Amino acid sequence: MKSAKIGLLGFGNVGGGTYKILTDNKAIIEARTGISPEIVKILQRNRNKKRLVSVDPVLLTEDPDDIIKDPDVDIVVEMLGGIEPATSFMLQAMKAGKHVVSANKAAIAANYKILTDTAQENGVKFLFEASVAGGIPVLTSITGALQSNNFIEIMGILNGTTNYILTKMTEEGLAYKDVLRDAQEKGFAEADPTADVEGIDAANKLSILMALAFDTYVAPEAIPTTGISSITESDICRAAEDGKIIKLIGKASVRSGKLEYSVQPMMLDKAHPLCGVNNEFNAVYITGDMVGELMFYGKGAGPLPTGSAVCGDIINIMKNMEVEK
Amino acid sequence: MKSAKIGLLGFGNVGGGTYKILTDNKAIIEARTGISPEIVKILQRNRNKKRLVSVDPVLLTEDPDDIIKDPDVDIVVEMLGGIEPATSFMLQAMKAGKHVVSANKAAIAANYKILTDTAQENGVKFLFEASVAGGIPVLTSITGALQSNNFIEIMGILNGTTNYILTKMTEEGLAYKDVLRDAQEKGFAEADPTADVEGIDAANKLSILMALAFDTYVAPEAIPTTGISSITESDICRAAEDGKIIKLIGKASVRSGKLEYSVQPMMLDKAHPLCGVNNEFNAVYITGDMVGELMFYGKGAGPLPTGSAVCGDIINIMKNMEVEK
Repeated sequence: MKSAKIGLLGFGNVGGGTYKILTDNKAIIEARTGISPEIVKILQRNRNKKRLVSVDPVLLTEDPDDIIKDPDVDIVVEMLGGIEPATSFMLQAMKAGKHVVSANKAAIAANYKILTDTAQENGVKFLFEASVAGGIPVLTSITGALQSNNFIEIMGILNGTTNYILTKMTEEGLAYKDVLRDAQEKGFAEADPTADVEGIDAANKLSILMALAFDTYVAPEAIPTTGISSITESDICRAAEDGKIIKLIGKASVRSGKLEYSVQPMMLDKAHPLCGVNNEFNAVYITGDMVGELMFYGKGAGPLPTGSAVCGDIINIMKNMEVEK
Repeated sequence: MKSAKIGLLGFGNVGGGTYKILTDNKAIIEARTGISPEIVKILQRNRNKKRLVSVDPVLLTEDPDDIIKDPDVDIVVEMLGGIEPATSFMLQAMKAGKHVVSANKAAIAANYKILTDTAQENGVKFLFEASVAGGIPVLTSITGALQSNNFIEIMGILNGTTNYILTKMTEEGLAYKDVLRDAQEKGFAEADPTADVEGIDAANKLSILMALAFDTYVAPEAIPTTGISSITESDICRAAEDGKIIKLIGKASVRSGKLEYSVQPMMLDKAHPLCGVNNEFNAVYITGDMVGELMFYGKGAGPLPTGSAVCGDIINIMKNMEVEK
């Protein structure tokens, strides 16, 4: 059986999940594609960090060039997080003729144009389903089954941490900072929660959604963004008295031909499908001119849901390599 | 600009919707693919039927061979409904080297193996996203972004007519036959509603979902199927007293390595995400071993939602033709 040689940049949560899926579900991937996914090298920057999976030490390297410059590697999977050095590594890999898969919303949102242009110039695939809403297949649906639509509106619950906090505040009447502390203790929120609670993470994801759905790139820092850190119990009570629920919504819509966008807490009618999306779940609500209203719901984070999206992209590239050979 | 030559078999609701999308959204399809979708011929069997769109009469034919045997046609789009002559037309088109897109769940569920085998033998694409849950991108997600998963369970509200009837019975306390008569008057139910209300339509769709997700073809007549025609107001009241709602569910799940499947009315807890799916909407709830739980929600029928899925398949083929040329 032919194989596709895969190099992983990063071996944290998403890297570990991706490794586990390609290993545990290798047989079904081979059966569905006729190609064997073979992990040939893993960049692990911090050898002392606790890992989700154990791995043959011969696969590990601390030198990114062992992956980016290895002529045998077909697909580079970038799961480092952060804008740099991730962006530079992806660009180098593309210029070396390698297909690139990434889960890194910050790097893609910041450098969307140069990344997509460089992939095109070098005739390689650049796929990043995992960068928005984790395991939910929303990006490939926008660029695939829904691509005959002019999109009218996209509304998303794009950040699991803030949705968890708002759900607990709504259902249990707790204060923001008490829920945040509890979420941090349980590992649902980072020690420094700024990127989540101030809406920065959601803005990165909205930037990527807009680039694909509206063919318009808006830098994340140009998206008016308000987080949830100033939401009070009385805000939530007042909303409830009006039959509404507060959710942190990334929204982009076309009004009179103009694209409008924001990330902010919004009061939604309790009957809105997004109001049933609770705790760490994510959802994206899309309106197309032809398909009407759709909602995609699922887990927006976690090693295996995010790894599922990464592996879907890897397999799509593997199938395409098959056609080319 | 290069063009893809498209022949439409059938010009009813779905055919009309597909024609409208390829015409109205031609510019955005060209911008996204670099290829122009060109409808070169339309098989219209009943010239007297009222049409969704008007069309240049020179495009119309009553002879299927004008499409199936035309060497210029790249993509044949089958939207006739019914098992025959639709299946024969699709097989002939594949053998003539044409890619085939179909919205026809009855034909695909009945003849899944010969259709997929014939497409493979002839090196052509056979895509049918529109055959299950209309505009909802569930099939391409199963075979694309989710393809690294072993699927554990699929539960779907797969028929809009029965979901509309059950919603009205639940929300307004009406009797089955009164709601059915009202739905028929409004055009939401067929004059002969048997295929919908007895679960036959849902069984066709479940058969297709199982073939793709579980790599196992089960003929629709082998799926234990119970419809909704014997559901009474008191069934619905008793369910409500237990905090449950009755939905017609197509369900397939793997239990101890064995695939179990049925179409039947089920009592779901009110908190289940499928309980928020009302009226003519469809939804598919999927559990994968890696991605966890996902739900896809949207319009399962109608000329434009179904046409959106048909056009997504057409464009996917167009993009692939581009790679090949």
